[in-house]
Parts: sequence; structure tokens; C-alpha cells
Amino acid sequence: MRPYEILASECLIKANIVDLYRDTILLPNGKTTTREVVRRGRAAAVIAALHSGEILFVRQYRHATGDFQLEIPAGMLEEGEDPAAGAARELEEETGYRPGKIRELFSFYSCIGFCDEVLHLFLAEDLTSGTPNPDEDEFVVVETYPKEEALRKVLSGEIRDAKTIAGVLYMCQEIHG
Amino acid sequence: MRPYEILASECLIKANIVDLYRDTILLPNGKTTTREVVRRGRAAAVIAALHSGEILFVRQYRHATGDFQLEIPAGMLEEGEDPAAGAARELEEETGYRPGKIRELFSFYSCIGFCDEVLHLFLAEDLTSGTPNPDEDEFVVVETYPKEEALRKVLSGEIRDAKTIAGVLYMCQEIHG
Repeated sequence: MRPYEILASECLIKANIVDLYRDTILLPNGKTTTREVVRRGRAAAVIAALHSGEILFVRQYRHATGDFQLEIPAGMLEEGEDPAAGAARELEEETGYRPGKIRELFSFYSCIGFCDEVLHLFLAEDLTSGTPNPDEDEFVVVETYPKEEALRKVLSGEIRDAKTIAGVLYMCQEIHG
Repeated sequence: MRPYEILASECLIKANIVDLYRDTILLPNGKTTTREVVRRGRAAAVIAALHSGEILFVRQYRHATGDFQLEIPAGMLEEGEDPAAGAARELEEETGYRPGKIRELFSFYSCIGFCDEVLHLFLAEDLTSGTPNPDEDEFVVVETYPKEEALRKVLSGEIRDAKTIAGVLYMCQEIHG
């Protein structure tokens, strides 16, 4: 199977957080149709495991949800930034912790049906504590939980963030990559 | 901590797949700022476990990714639709299978940083096979894999979809809710 051919691409809007395009594509049955796509770029998130075995979380207000959310540290990568460097940067900005070791677990499309955002998920270990340095207008509280308690927060609905759920479930499965 | 107050909300565009808003909000420090948000609504996805223990997947072209992707069945909920009914509907449309039992595992924001989409993840069992009935212009191939093989596909990068990764990792952890 081959990728569908894009016959034309129209930018509907360029906003601060996303760009929205309407593309004309050729289907396998020979028909043409349009598909919209939200373009956003790359992000990185990090499961940071303390020596105690606890995982670092940040609690912050998320406007899209209208509420405070418990998440693992994450953020958008800068243009050309190495994903591991971006994950370590976001971890330090939001929590003050610097990783001695960091490795990518896997990456994924956050919302494959309409958006091109790819999120790289990392595991950070051998952490050294320091002072957080959040962006202006970012109000972040650091919390730590053992993985079993984090899993309960997923199943009870307290943790409601896709990347955080993927990270917590990864830590709770048996076959580590 | 209280939700931030929304002082104003401007619709930047209403497109087919999303609406984009720019809201003015009041920060805890008394300043006002703007936050954009992509509004999209609710979705449902389903881990469908056959009697053999294998999980049902669908392989389809995803324009946002420029490639074919292996995913669990999923789709947007219709206005006012019960999430369990929507999950069962999408499962039957895409694979032909109807569930005897279906229950919600958890739900999450797909891209918490910029979009309000909530995805409800279900586990479907006691499946009865039938004839798929995909939407026009939807070209879907059904595949089945044991959970261990699906996990390998996550760790190797073949599965690159957030909801599918969450579902596969859930099936591979020990404490089922």
C-alpha cells in the first residue's frame, strides 16, 4: 500500500498553537477528496523515576480542559531540537531535576485522526535536584507518586492525560524494552 | 486551586474537523493573557479481545501522518451519543464484530496542551463476527495480534498511535481495574 497522493494543500489559518490545512488527496478508488489536518510539530515528555522509585508529576491548569491536570513533564520541541535534549530541558524547567540517564521509550501521534503532532516519550533516571525555572505565566506544582498509586489515579480518572497514561502504564507492565 | 476565569472567547475558524478559539483568561497573578484552544468533542476507542486472546486492530491510511497506521477501532461520538454505544458502533462498522460485553477502562484528553478532545477507551469481550460496514472513503484492513506481539509493535515503533498504545499497555499490565 502506498501513501495517498496530495494534489493540493491550502492553509486555512496560521494560529499561535497550530496551523490548519485543507488538502486535496487522491483516494485508492481514483476519486479525489479533501482532508483537513492540524499541523503542530513535535513534542517530548518524560517519565522521571527518582531513586525511591517514585515518579515526578506536575500539576498545572490546562485551559483546553478547563481544569488543573496531573501530568508528566512535557513540552514542544524547539525547531531542530534533539528530542532527548528537549525532554531534559522541559524536565528541568518544570521540576528542577536534571537526568543522569535519559532514553526514548517510544513515540506516537497524539491525535492521529486530525493532527500531525508526534510526541517522543522518554525515561529519565539518576536524577539530580535543582531549582525549577518555568516559563512566565506557567504555574506548576511538582508532586511525586509511586507507580502503583499513579496507576490507581489513571483507573480512577484523576489522571486524564494521554501521554501520562501511556507513561504510567509502561512503567507498570512487565516487559521493559 | 480554582479554574482560571475566561473573560472573552473569539472563534478564529470553524472547519470540518475542528473549531479554533482564542480565549482571554485571567491568570492567578492578576494578569490577563490569551490562550488558543482547538475544540473537537468526544471520541471512543475499543480494545476488542477475541476468545483466542488476540486483539483486533485496523490498518488504514491516516492523512495527518502521511502513512498507513495500525490502530484499535475508534471514531468520533455523535452528538449526545453514549460512549459505550459509540465504541460498539465504531467496532462493528470497522471490523464487523459485535461485543457481548463492553466496559469503559478510562478516558483521557488526547492532546491536553491545545485541544479539548476527550477519548473514552473501552474493553470489548464476547465478540460475535459479522460484516464490516466502513464509511464511504474509509479503506480499512482488519488484523489481529496477541497482546505480547502488539507490545513489541509499540516498542519497535510500528504502532505509533497514542490511544492504541494506551490500550495495549493496559492489556499488558497486571493490575486490571
